[in-house]
Amino acid sequence: MDFIKDVIYNKNISVKNLIEQYDNLGLQASKLKKAAEIIIKMKKSGAKIYFTFTSNMVSSGLRGLFAQAIEKGLADIVITTTGSIEEDIMKALGEKFILGSFKADDVELYEKGMNRIGNIYVQNQSYEKFEAHMQNFLEDIYKKQKIWKTPEFLKEIGLSLKDKNSFLYQAAKNNIPIYNPAITDGALGFQFFLFKNKHPDFQIDIINDFKDLVFQVTRDDQKGIIALGGGTSKHYAILSSTISGGMDYAVYITTARQDSGSASGATTQEAKSWGKIKSNSDAITVNGDVSIIFPLIFAYVCDKLNL
Amino acid sequence: MDFIKDVIYNKNISVKNLIEQYDNLGLQASKLKKAAEIIIKMKKSGAKIYFTFTSNMVSSGLRGLFAQAIEKGLADIVITTTGSIEEDIMKALGEKFILGSFKADDVELYEKGMNRIGNIYVQNQSYEKFEAHMQNFLEDIYKKQKIWKTPEFLKEIGLSLKDKNSFLYQAAKNNIPIYNPAITDGALGFQFFLFKNKHPDFQIDIINDFKDLVFQVTRDDQKGIIALGGGTSKHYAILSSTISGGMDYAVYITTARQDSGSASGATTQEAKSWGKIKSNSDAITVNGDVSIIFPLIFAYVCDKLNL
Amino acid sequence: MDFIKDVIYNKNISVKNLIEQYDNLGLQASKLKKAAEIIIKMKKSGAKIYFTFTSNMVSSGLRGLFAQAIEKGLADIVITTTGSIEEDIMKALGEKFILGSFKADDVELYEKGMNRIGNIYVQNQSYEKFEAHMQNFLEDIYKKQKIWKTPEFLKEIGLSLKDKNSFLYQAAKNNIPIYNPAITDGALGFQFFLFKNKHPDFQIDIINDFKDLVFQVTRDDQKGIIALGGGTSKHYAILSSTISGGMDYAVYITTARQDSGSASGATTQEAKSWGKIKSNSDAITVNGDVSIIFPLIFAYVCDKLNL
Amino acid sequence: MDFIKDVIYNKNISVKNLIEQYDNLGLQASKLKKAAEIIIKMKKSGAKIYFTFTSNMVSSGLRGLFAQAIEKGLADIVITTTGSIEEDIMKALGEKFILGSFKADDVELYEKGMNRIGNIYVQNQSYEKFEAHMQNFLEDIYKKQKIWKTPEFLKEIGLSLKDKNSFLYQAAKNNIPIYNPAITDGALGFQFFLFKNKHPDFQIDIINDFKDLVFQVTRDDQKGIIALGGGTSKHYAILSSTISGGMDYAVYITTARQDSGSASGATTQEAKSWGKIKSNSDAITVNGDVSIIFPLIFAYVCDKLNL
Repeated sequence: MDFIKDVIYNKNISVKNLIEQYDNLGLQASKLKKAAEIIIKMKKSGAKIYFTFTSNMVSSGLRGLFAQAIEKGLADIVITTTGSIEEDIMKALGEKFILGSFKADDVELYEKGMNRIGNIYVQNQSYEKFEAHMQNFLEDIYKKQKIWKTPEFLKEIGLSLKDKNSFLYQAAKNNIPIYNPAITDGALGFQFFLFKNKHPDFQIDIINDFKDLVFQVTRDDQKGIIALGGGTSKHYAILSSTISGGMDYAVYITTARQDSGSASGATTQEAKSWGKIKSNSDAITVNGDVSIIFPLIFAYVCDKLNL
Repeated sequence: MDFIKDVIYNKNISVKNLIEQYDNLGLQASKLKKAAEIIIKMKKSGAKIYFTFTSNMVSSGLRGLFAQAIEKGLADIVITTTGSIEEDIMKALGEKFILGSFKADDVELYEKGMNRIGNIYVQNQSYEKFEAHMQNFLEDIYKKQKIWKTPEFLKEIGLSLKDKNSFLYQAAKNNIPIYNPAITDGALGFQFFLFKNKHPDFQIDIINDFKDLVFQVTRDDQKGIIALGGGTSKHYAILSSTISGGMDYAVYITTARQDSGSASGATTQEAKSWGKIKSNSDAITVNGDVSIIFPLIFAYVCDKLNL
Repeated sequence: MDFIKDVIYNKNISVKNLIEQYDNLGLQASKLKKAAEIIIKMKKSGAKIYFTFTSNMVSSGLRGLFAQAIEKGLADIVITTTGSIEEDIMKALGEKFILGSFKADDVELYEKGMNRIGNIYVQNQSYEKFEAHMQNFLEDIYKKQKIWKTPEFLKEIGLSLKDKNSFLYQAAKNNIPIYNPAITDGALGFQFFLFKNKHPDFQIDIINDFKDLVFQVTRDDQKGIIALGGGTSKHYAILSSTISGGMDYAVYITTARQDSGSASGATTQEAKSWGKIKSNSDAITVNGDVSIIFPLIFAYVCDKLNL
Repeated sequence: MDFIKDVIYNKNISVKNLIEQYDNLGLQASKLKKAAEIIIKMKKSGAKIYFTFTSNMVSSGLRGLFAQAIEKGLADIVITTTGSIEEDIMKALGEKFILGSFKADDVELYEKGMNRIGNIYVQNQSYEKFEAHMQNFLEDIYKKQKIWKTPEFLKEIGLSLKDKNSFLYQAAKNNIPIYNPAITDGALGFQFFLFKNKHPDFQIDIINDFKDLVFQVTRDDQKGIIALGGGTSKHYAILSSTISGGMDYAVYITTARQDSGSASGATTQEAKSWGKIKSNSDAITVNGDVSIIFPLIFAYVCDKLNL
């Protein structure tokens, strides 16, 4: 039986020491610590790790940690959405995002050509730079082949970027596939259709994407998931793993709650009824903000595993 | 200036009368009423209405209202995700979903072949029936053409169902296109890849989907959105409308909050910075559970518009 | 076994008919319907009903329903906080509250002498009117006795108001005691201390309040609770009932979630571990906004019970 | 203008270094950092600091940090609720709380004599020990005087405890007053009424409590608040400060949201309309779990201020 212990601060406390104390703090802090321990077990077991996140996180400084997570071997399969890809590219091209306010005047921002994501502003010029880059890029890769699977397409982009903080770059360099179940849902969708107007036989082969994702793992593999936020990225991961018997380890961190019955708010518990997560798995849902929680878990895990 | 008024119950009160009183109740109730009024204006203006929802809502009894919304002309463009399509088909095939509990024992459910969505259980047999249906259906439509745009594909399914409570059926019958930015993210994804194993040239043309969606409206059209829940359905709608100048009317109903910076929680206000919603639009975000709120708004709107 | 059914709208649908359909809708809608049924059972069983709410609800138009709930016998013991009392009095004195916006400029409101509660504004003049009223009132009752128990004090206020929409008035008229575990936490606290400067022996006897509350029920009584929102009102009710064996029926409606471990977010389930609610009770927690949900439940219950 | 920067993990990263990076991370992480900076300014300015928290936090290991916050001079006036006091005493008496699960079987816990607070269990024996202690304690202090103000009463308790992790002890030792606007709302309420049966002239003087709280500060004092969670503790603090012109600095950390219009969810912004917080104050509301967020802020502030 575990007991609650009073937390003690000491000067220049390390993240590792503080998170160790979270163990016996109770409430969500204890769950955060447990999530970190599950990731450590996941890694030690040699599990194939699905790593999913949403695009607002890439808009934020979490992007740097995502690149490091891939570099350090904490992600074997990445799943995300289109905004993530676009903004990773913009940043790799040198565009800067502005730290603003959740309470900004959005009409004024619009007039200034600034697009708001929570308290982060992306300027129109960043989109323009992205679009110019993509039309050239698409011309280049079209010369290689007409029909692309998403991970292959994203790998080509990653290789074209020289930014160690780019998750696309790190994934390409480390041979980690990136999936995206809704690749046209973003400015990239516009670029695709502009390009396809010139080259009608250009195609993204989403059916083979899914097949490919399913065959990334076998029934014999240990499998784990780190799902940051919800959405189709999270669902695509757990759905595809059911065929190979479900996840052995699962960590969800999210502000979405289960009471709406949405896929984003669905807990690791709910996933067990589907066989998306195994009945006897190590699994936890931490309720809270990823921007605060993930850096803590990441630092703790890296320190403990000496990554 | 509007004042708060005490709500008065009277015997056998109608939804219309109660919602009229919500106007001056304050808090979210006033916002619910305002949302209903915006939908009324949207409809009266002749706006093209984007109607988006998530799959857990189709798992629930809201499905019947979605079919009616389409039938009664409150939806010109439907956007949803794959779970919605699958479960609409299952129900049209006669499958029954079980009303259960949010606190169920998920391991026990798994052993009984029941898959939980909040407090709704879908049985494995319903998936099996769906899969059998789809393999036959895919063989049929493959004879017509090899490459399908999503709305055309979904229209074919809709026409094959004879269930007035099916949103696929009502959309097909009323010639309303249904988009889905992530069509392989579901059991349908498995069916596609099994089918493609036999017929490698079968393809879903997602790039033309997006083009097609963009051209559903022009800059001159009045445009409105009713977004129930978040996710890629909501984003796909507002993203595509930016090209034609953004929405003139917008109603979001969601439990997701803006403070995580996620697309699901992003408010109608945030959308204005992007030009996804016009600066001078009639727009509101109601915070709350769609299963409770949407039926009220729908009934009020239909009563007022005599639909 | 219950199944999910598609909701069907029909013209001029009554609240009763719609809520009946919520039964088989699933998600929170089904829970709303179950909450209504529990209140019906609670009433039919002859249970003593604790009715608790927070002050923002009295700021809103829910106040009218609270008065009706008391008048119709759905509340035997009322527990609330000081803001409720103050604003009920202001409204009974003819003050009008303004329907505003959650996104108001609060500095501007301050300069205009308006105090914001969500999207409701209370003007400084309403507080001034309240204060003038209270000083006279306190002089009057001080002549009767120096030491007051809260329910007796509040009954005197209630009797002085002639407003059928006032919950203080209805409670006084119907001999329903009103408790308030934190009566100085509001503008009333200022009035008390100003008055006590003149009359140092004036006192509120909070220890006897609590004793009194405990003895409102016996172990043999059936007991039920309708807790709208959280806070000390809710806690005071369930705490006091433990002595007499806990609640037999419990309905919580709240936006607070259990994952912070707070008393406000604690579920009816958690209360069972304490004996605050009986193990075999009929109990439910509906997650959502009281301003939208309570009027529906109230109308349904009154229609069904012919109140 | 500030820009978003990618977060970089380095081995054995300190909390200070990580929180410095939160500055440019965006989303809630940036707000956490800003909250920490406001507390630093608050302290440097010599402001009188109101420190409020809820009882579930004292159930948890945060208790140790609350004691340190008082010891290190980060709290000049403490406001909390009765559960906090009770559980602080139990722990000081050597009782251990159990780290359990949010998903426990509450009926089973009840049968085992365990009372659940989120994922923390308090055993019946801890309450029994508390009660025995209180009856003796009340006899002792009654000999000194019959009518007590809450802070004086709590100071006497604090002096009787010899536990450096007890916030009651540290407050007593450092001469910091503790207020509680609802002191009978807890097991302590039972103890009071049992005691008053024997000694009818025993009384808690809540009206003078409030007066006393108001006079803790003057209009000329700089004033700041650190409000952890909501409830009556938070409200009592900001209410009382309006008389002396409102807070100059304010940090709220909470999971409650403003959209219900509740006092718990009310933002620092809303408080400005009331004059509870000054128009030109440094103020922020961080949305998230206190158990995770407060230790980070506390460690950062102590490191920076060399406390």
